Amino acid sequence: MTGESRGQRIVALAGGVGGARLVDGLDRTLPAGALTVVVNTGDDFQHWGLRISPDLDTVMYTLAGLSPEERGWGIDGDTFHVLAEAERRGAAGWFQLGDRDLVTHLRRTKGLAGGRTLTEVTTSLCRTLGVERTLLPMSDVPRPTVIETPDGRRIPFQNWLVRERTGPAVAQVHYEGRPDATATVRDALRGADLVIICPSNPYVSIDPILTLDGIAPLLREKQVIAVSPLIGGRAVKGPLAKMVAQIDADEPTSAWVAAHYGDVLDGLLVHPGDAFTTDLPLLETNILIQDRRDRVALAESLLDFARINR
Amino acid sequence: MTGESRGQRIVALAGGVGGARLVDGLDRTLPAGALTVVVNTGDDFQHWGLRISPDLDTVMYTLAGLSPEERGWGIDGDTFHVLAEAERRGAAGWFQLGDRDLVTHLRRTKGLAGGRTLTEVTTSLCRTLGVERTLLPMSDVPRPTVIETPDGRRIPFQNWLVRERTGPAVAQVHYEGRPDATATVRDALRGADLVIICPSNPYVSIDPILTLDGIAPLLREKQVIAVSPLIGGRAVKGPLAKMVAQIDADEPTSAWVAAHYGDVLDGLLVHPGDAFTTDLPLLETNILIQDRRDRVALAESLLDFARINR
Repeated sequence: MTGESRGQRIVALAGGVGGARLVDGLDRTLPAGALTVVVNTGDDFQHWGLRISPDLDTVMYTLAGLSPEERGWGIDGDTFHVLAEAERRGAAGWFQLGDRDLVTHLRRTKGLAGGRTLTEVTTSLCRTLGVERTLLPMSDVPRPTVIETPDGRRIPFQNWLVRERTGPAVAQVHYEGRPDATATVRDALRGADLVIICPSNPYVSIDPILTLDGIAPLLREKQVIAVSPLIGGRAVKGPLAKMVAQIDADEPTSAWVAAHYGDVLDGLLVHPGDAFTTDLPLLETNILIQDRRDRVALAESLLDFARINR
Repeated sequence: MTGESRGQRIVALAGGVGGARLVDGLDRTLPAGALTVVVNTGDDFQHWGLRISPDLDTVMYTLAGLSPEERGWGIDGDTFHVLAEAERRGAAGWFQLGDRDLVTHLRRTKGLAGGRTLTEVTTSLCRTLGVERTLLPMSDVPRPTVIETPDGRRIPFQNWLVRERTGPAVAQVHYEGRPDATATVRDALRGADLVIICPSNPYVSIDPILTLDGIAPLLREKQVIAVSPLIGGRAVKGPLAKMVAQIDADEPTSAWVAAHYGDVLDGLLVHPGDAFTTDLPLLETNILIQDRRDRVALAESLLDFARINR
């Protein structure tokens, strides 16, 4: 525990697996009540009539200690009997819904159908799984991320990511629906002493949060530190590197990350060898999270760096 | 195949396991297109936010050859991983939802939420499972069976049957909601040459159908043959025997069955030794279905008896 982080209020903005792992490190480093996690819901979609929130689930399962170390998503040791039966009956089985995982989606769907908000449902899911950190969906209203290809085709994000395996080139990313952050999210950011942008994909995990009404102006008043999702010109996970080339015709470097977040940013953690010339405070440190100890080490480095540059 | 049943249109009214077994015998006996099954939906309920139709599922799984021979309900060899996880998270696990079974409820729930009727959803579920017989829910609108105890408590049927294991005494059975049979069901009955009342519980499987608007008058114009659900003063399965004592203060005999159905009935199959003095045509024959051959034998006896008494 970083002594001086006592009493500090920290908000982490997170997407899926990469974000979840840093959040887990922060969870193990920070005292109770210090950390609030705002999670991207741009990936949310419906499948089999169920309401699925992939990033919320990944963060929740990771904090609950249920995530498989390697794969990152879903529940470790989960079985797939329901999926096998659905496929046997002709369903498209492109989204891997595990049997234990399914309970989360059933409960979320039932809660939302009964008029509860996604924020309320998430709190209740977390409580049942023993997750004590505050996990906040960025919004209680749908804000689906949509991928637009160079020929103008618009593909819902999960279809592009999972079903089409990020094959179609990306010309542009759209955030549809209403840009409403919840009051709870705005309050958490307003009260934050430090905001951490996790090493998640900026286009599809972080920007959906940053583009919500009122969020970017709020962040400009705060100390905001990001961890680069790129190492040596490659994404740690996922399609980010090729998206940088396709969308911005740029190189997937830490300099691109800094330029992308622009004046929101007050500091950036980059991997050794990835530093670049800039006025922005940089910390060169190991940002590749390979095991649980790396998660804590990265969290501690980040909190120290934030304190020094406050 | 009973030669003379060619071209005949037969409608069977069925509840759960007992009904499903006779229907399976009829299915193996009658030519394609000859049999329509009208199934009780009074047991239908919501659980985990899912729309569950226990009797439709039992008949469908039985015709698909998926039912466990012994247990009667659910899918043979099904696993219960989702249920185990739900219980681990504190859910009441009183209703045994199997993993493969769950796919049925997910699809039904999604179909109904999308505006399709229960009749349409049932047809689609049957097609996917290779069931070619026409299976009709008695109604497309909810018509929940409710058990009233002597002290005036009203218990939804599945709660009473499964959760409370038929413990509370029954003063009366109510059929709530709107008494609307579908036009499809009315047309099937109007065109029927023979109507079979399966050996299901009269109070909670058959009466929900008979009490729908216009059904009883239609049946009085038809040849209606029932198979007694009672053998030697006991129910083959379920709580019928004690319900007869509790509700009607009567003995659970074949005579009670005949009196209960009254002028709707044109003949009754009873177990050897269960005949009684009556003007109603009776057939004493083995009505205890123990294996698949018994199903076919009973169906053949019934069709012969119906032909002789036409």
